[in-house]
Amino acid sequence: MSQPFSSLRVDPDRMRESFNQLASIGVTADSGVDRPTFSDAHLAARKWFREHIEKSSLEFHTDGAGNHSAVLPVIARSDSPEAMTKTLILGSHLDSVPNGGRFDGALGVMAALEVLKTVRENGIRLNVHLEAMDFTDEEGTLVGLLGSAALAGHLTQENLQKPRGGRDKLVEGMNRAGLSDSSMLSAARKKESLAGYLELHIEQGKRLERTKTDIGIVTAIVGIWSYRLSFIGKADHAGSTTMEDRRDASLGASAFTLAAREMVMRDFPNCVVNVGNMDFAPGAFNIVPAQVDVSLEFRSPDEDEFNHLDKALLELAAKESACFGLELKTEFLGKHSPSLMDEKVRSAFAESCDALGLSHMSLPSGAGHDGQSLADLCPVGMIFVPSVDGASHSPREFTKWEDCVNGANVLLQAALRLAM
Amino acid sequence: MSQPFSSLRVDPDRMRESFNQLASIGVTADSGVDRPTFSDAHLAARKWFREHIEKSSLEFHTDGAGNHSAVLPVIARSDSPEAMTKTLILGSHLDSVPNGGRFDGALGVMAALEVLKTVRENGIRLNVHLEAMDFTDEEGTLVGLLGSAALAGHLTQENLQKPRGGRDKLVEGMNRAGLSDSSMLSAARKKESLAGYLELHIEQGKRLERTKTDIGIVTAIVGIWSYRLSFIGKADHAGSTTMEDRRDASLGASAFTLAAREMVMRDFPNCVVNVGNMDFAPGAFNIVPAQVDVSLEFRSPDEDEFNHLDKALLELAAKESACFGLELKTEFLGKHSPSLMDEKVRSAFAESCDALGLSHMSLPSGAGHDGQSLADLCPVGMIFVPSVDGASHSPREFTKWEDCVNGANVLLQAALRLAM
Repeated sequence: MSQPFSSLRVDPDRMRESFNQLASIGVTADSGVDRPTFSDAHLAARKWFREHIEKSSLEFHTDGAGNHSAVLPVIARSDSPEAMTKTLILGSHLDSVPNGGRFDGALGVMAALEVLKTVRENGIRLNVHLEAMDFTDEEGTLVGLLGSAALAGHLTQENLQKPRGGRDKLVEGMNRAGLSDSSMLSAARKKESLAGYLELHIEQGKRLERTKTDIGIVTAIVGIWSYRLSFIGKADHAGSTTMEDRRDASLGASAFTLAAREMVMRDFPNCVVNVGNMDFAPGAFNIVPAQVDVSLEFRSPDEDEFNHLDKALLELAAKESACFGLELKTEFLGKHSPSLMDEKVRSAFAESCDALGLSHMSLPSGAGHDGQSLADLCPVGMIFVPSVDGASHSPREFTKWEDCVNGANVLLQAALRLAM
Repeated sequence: MSQPFSSLRVDPDRMRESFNQLASIGVTADSGVDRPTFSDAHLAARKWFREHIEKSSLEFHTDGAGNHSAVLPVIARSDSPEAMTKTLILGSHLDSVPNGGRFDGALGVMAALEVLKTVRENGIRLNVHLEAMDFTDEEGTLVGLLGSAALAGHLTQENLQKPRGGRDKLVEGMNRAGLSDSSMLSAARKKESLAGYLELHIEQGKRLERTKTDIGIVTAIVGIWSYRLSFIGKADHAGSTTMEDRRDASLGASAFTLAAREMVMRDFPNCVVNVGNMDFAPGAFNIVPAQVDVSLEFRSPDEDEFNHLDKALLELAAKESACFGLELKTEFLGKHSPSLMDEKVRSAFAESCDALGLSHMSLPSGAGHDGQSLADLCPVGMIFVPSVDGASHSPREFTKWEDCVNGANVLLQAALRLAM
């Protein structure tokens, strides 16, 4: 039995016109966009989005966290008292990293808006309100996942006092947008009001491109654990100390870096590991390194696997350290748990792909997204469309328009499946 | 046939008293000494040395580089016109690294002075003047090997304009000691005036201690070559980029560090290599390292071996770089050539050890010493005495007094062999 409205499609030309108008705001010389949160260009993009919504007969909504959205309320039905109606949010973000690309975030917001327009103009009666959302500061110029955390009620005073970008920058940004600490904390919505959250995003990797797959259905947004590992040896004269007599901290750090990569590739194929920095002390040409501090981060889509990987990496560090006569100190720096995407939402995406004749595959998201803020409140799902050469956070970001339209149609069809 | 004066010995108690007086100047809480060049403590040690010489009926001498020495001139002999008489210098230095030890440098100066006293009081007629030297700034608080380079005529205006410790510090130091750029450059001696240079020093390593050998006869002061090696990959998102898709600069740097050590230990047993620092860019937990700059230094006592080692290390860096899909840039930062110790001087040391019933072994000096300034002007030789646990540049420096006396007697006997 076919779904109702299964022949419904977004208007690719209308969506493209909106996408191009948006991409011109904060455009850079190399056709990327530079719209860090609450920069002039970002404020201009937000103003354009608001005016665009108001012109399109959708309701404009904003909150104390500066989240902007278009709302398509349920058309009153006799069998569904409005007081109990939930909202299905579709969306992404309009901010970018410095000198970023046109697609990251912007595609998801424009596709969400196009879905609402398509539903509205076809007069479809749904059981939930639809909302096309631009979440504030997803990229973390100020805090990171700021708007979604505020909406989910996860934002704390401490987040605002010690933001990743520095308190001064946050205060300046909030002032520019007419926001404040207290307005931020007032943006929380009731869990009972949320029917779910769906997001379309470009893949930040090459798996779809490499396998020639149209749509990636996200299984989980990976969690992140991080450590500072200190390999500790002894500073010695690098001329007069024989090779055999050294306790060279660089050897443990180097051996761990190589072995951790090999182990993850061999035993933890769903995970990634990164040694992003090493800090040598004393760090002189002519002194055997006494201590090397390693910045270690690893990601997994699964909590159980995290525990295994954590144990394996720390054992490996201890083994390599002992192998070179070094001492090891480990400092746990914190973790974000993985966010599982909702099974029912994943099924709705998969069925929509099948109905549209689009190939699809399941894959984790290695990067963080606003959905992780909401995953413990309501059903959350994400889809990816292919990004040429896996480019992301770069002016080189490019996704073929056909793929963008495919993504928007899957978003539309999945939303209809979940909203009826 | 035994040498004349082969039964001559230094006075161990007199030498010890001088040594202990000197060790009390700039003494630290943990019984080390803190006498960086031209610090108050260093100036006090220099004043003590001058007064000590003047009280001992030796001639005090100084030059424009602040080198201080005791001179024992040849007793006029009818068959040796004074105009042609050369000088055999024995010595070391009274400056220390910050929070250094009592033996490094000080032992060599005190032993040299004791040799002169012993020769003088025995009325021995030599063919050369003897000079017990304290060279300025051996350790490099200001320039490094400053006094010996000045005496050898190797010091340049550029050395003084861009000194390792900074120009301001050098100017301040020279002012404190009543010296200037022009006085420094005036300290050069004529090559024809130099009969040779002998130095007694503690070993800065454990080879004598480990092999229970009394005296190390230095074959060469090793040369040093240094490079900055840049392993260049690509910055990528450390979450969304698969392990397979990364071009992680840390992998080339780590693999090179491990392999260089193994290669040197296996194929270049006379050499040492040190990766003293790595500098990661961008250096963030969540970004795959795009570039790692490696501070590489290697040392060899032999110029030919240097050329082979240089080639092997650069080939290794290129191989490891290619292995991980990286680009390699190499920047040669300079070299000091190895200084071969004079064969005749080495023989004089060996014969003296044999005559004194002391075991000896040949070994290179992995650290730099003033002898390298003089090795192209005159015969130069060095001996080491054992240092407990190989400690050097540390308050833990300790050499048994018996070993110090052995060293002084070898210095005395070798000087007699070379001066008659």
